[in-house]
Amino acid sequence: MTGAPAQSAVRLRLDLSYDGSAFHGWARQPGLRTVQQTVEDALCRVLALSAAPRLTVAGRTDAGVHARGQVAHLDVPAGSWAQAAGMAARRMGRLLPADVRMHAIDSVPDAFDARFSALWRRYSYRVCDDPAGADPLRRHETLSYSRLLDLGRMNEAAACCIGEHDFAAFCRRREGATTVRELLRLAWARPERGVAVATVVADAFCHNMVRSLTGALLAVGDGSKPASWLAGVLAARVRDPAVRVVPPHGLCLEEIGYPAAADFAARAGLTRRVRPGPGGCGGS
Amino acid sequence: MTGAPAQSAVRLRLDLSYDGSAFHGWARQPGLRTVQQTVEDALCRVLALSAAPRLTVAGRTDAGVHARGQVAHLDVPAGSWAQAAGMAARRMGRLLPADVRMHAIDSVPDAFDARFSALWRRYSYRVCDDPAGADPLRRHETLSYSRLLDLGRMNEAAACCIGEHDFAAFCRRREGATTVRELLRLAWARPERGVAVATVVADAFCHNMVRSLTGALLAVGDGSKPASWLAGVLAARVRDPAVRVVPPHGLCLEEIGYPAAADFAARAGLTRRVRPGPGGCGGS
Repeated sequence: MTGAPAQSAVRLRLDLSYDGSAFHGWARQPGLRTVQQTVEDALCRVLALSAAPRLTVAGRTDAGVHARGQVAHLDVPAGSWAQAAGMAARRMGRLLPADVRMHAIDSVPDAFDARFSALWRRYSYRVCDDPAGADPLRRHETLSYSRLLDLGRMNEAAACCIGEHDFAAFCRRREGATTVRELLRLAWARPERGVAVATVVADAFCHNMVRSLTGALLAVGDGSKPASWLAGVLAARVRDPAVRVVPPHGLCLEEIGYPAAADFAARAGLTRRVRPGPGGCGGS
Repeated sequence: MTGAPAQSAVRLRLDLSYDGSAFHGWARQPGLRTVQQTVEDALCRVLALSAAPRLTVAGRTDAGVHARGQVAHLDVPAGSWAQAAGMAARRMGRLLPADVRMHAIDSVPDAFDARFSALWRRYSYRVCDDPAGADPLRRHETLSYSRLLDLGRMNEAAACCIGEHDFAAFCRRREGATTVRELLRLAWARPERGVAVATVVADAFCHNMVRSLTGALLAVGDGSKPASWLAGVLAARVRDPAVRVVPPHGLCLEEIGYPAAADFAARAGLTRRVRPGPGGCGGS
């Protein structure tokens, strides 16, 4: 598979956001409500296709994980797109349920691949550490944490993870897949009183990696582990039972970074060699 | 009634926030889930009272309206408070459902009255005017508006309402109650792309006043009414059917302002003369 659409087909890029609370994650599963199935079924109607198309997604989010900047691509017959293009965004807005929004649908060069062309993924993890202070309006996207967090300690501990490492200690291992990733950013800030938010950026993430890193840093932030503990866990390169995988509802896929159009194919080729396989790279 | 607690009673102030989505408003109603009943029932258990106490609230919010800074008071036997005080906040946190949080419970001078001592109330109204851009995670607190809003026009129109006016044009009239209020602030801003938020501050609000003012300003902002229209509506002092009362879920009671403790009684006495009656002053 070269990843290019068949002749007389056009490749489309979708930009999506969703509240993951009522979805069993991104990926289609028989009998369960998933984001993929919901969006594919709406596309099938709007583009008047004979069967639901298959989306390729940048970040396969787990059940309960949210997205503000998810990206997916699909190939459709050029004729279908020519007929539907003008009204597609508006009709998708009407067809999709309130917990999924499509921000844009556009034709892109054939070399664009939502998953393999991506340069980086940015996630956030939102925690409230004020026992009485959680904002009930944002409880669906915020972990309530019963102990006060020292963000200085957490950022000090996080520094050892920046750069290219084998993150096996923070991942669910998959046969034949590398757990080496390049972590570009891992930083905590307080955007409002009583709320701590992690910003986590990497070229890609292994399964559970963001939630495991967050769990480890919460243990450092509440004082139950020393800041130096994290470097040892990372270096051991085996899953550490002391690292808690935090719940999904604090996690949100915020943004995917892509190169300029001329570099889509080169990036995709490089990524496919490093991280082959059909599974997608969900960081959630 | 003087508003002071009986001897050997202590007056308590509660600071509350709630997601109004699943409540039939603040005020108790038989057979319906309300914020007042939920909080009073929890207080009854935590303070080991023989019957649910009655709260006096600063802003009686309507069904679906949210609060981040609601304030209420109640009087309880001094003995009950002495026994419960140390653990009251934590126990309330465990008893209350996730859509109501109590930020604080403290004893206050007898002259404090959550409703009548208040100097001002601040509400926000949140609107998304990007047809595809609404954040699904904040849809419960955001009105989706299908037309682009010109905030400059809206702020220009709003200026005529600042100060003391008879707001009868924007209120549901109640027999024997004045509709004169002092509007201290009414300003729109864009805290993020595609989102417009009104900040509305007044000494107090008549019923539906914030939602009617917001509805009128949306009509100015989308171009369907000229900026000068609002001054005419206000001056007419009769309910104008062209003013739409916007839905409750965009509205949030953000903060109540009180004077220094020495002025609680003086402020309450003044307010009772101007706005008597048992009904509370819900601005929602």
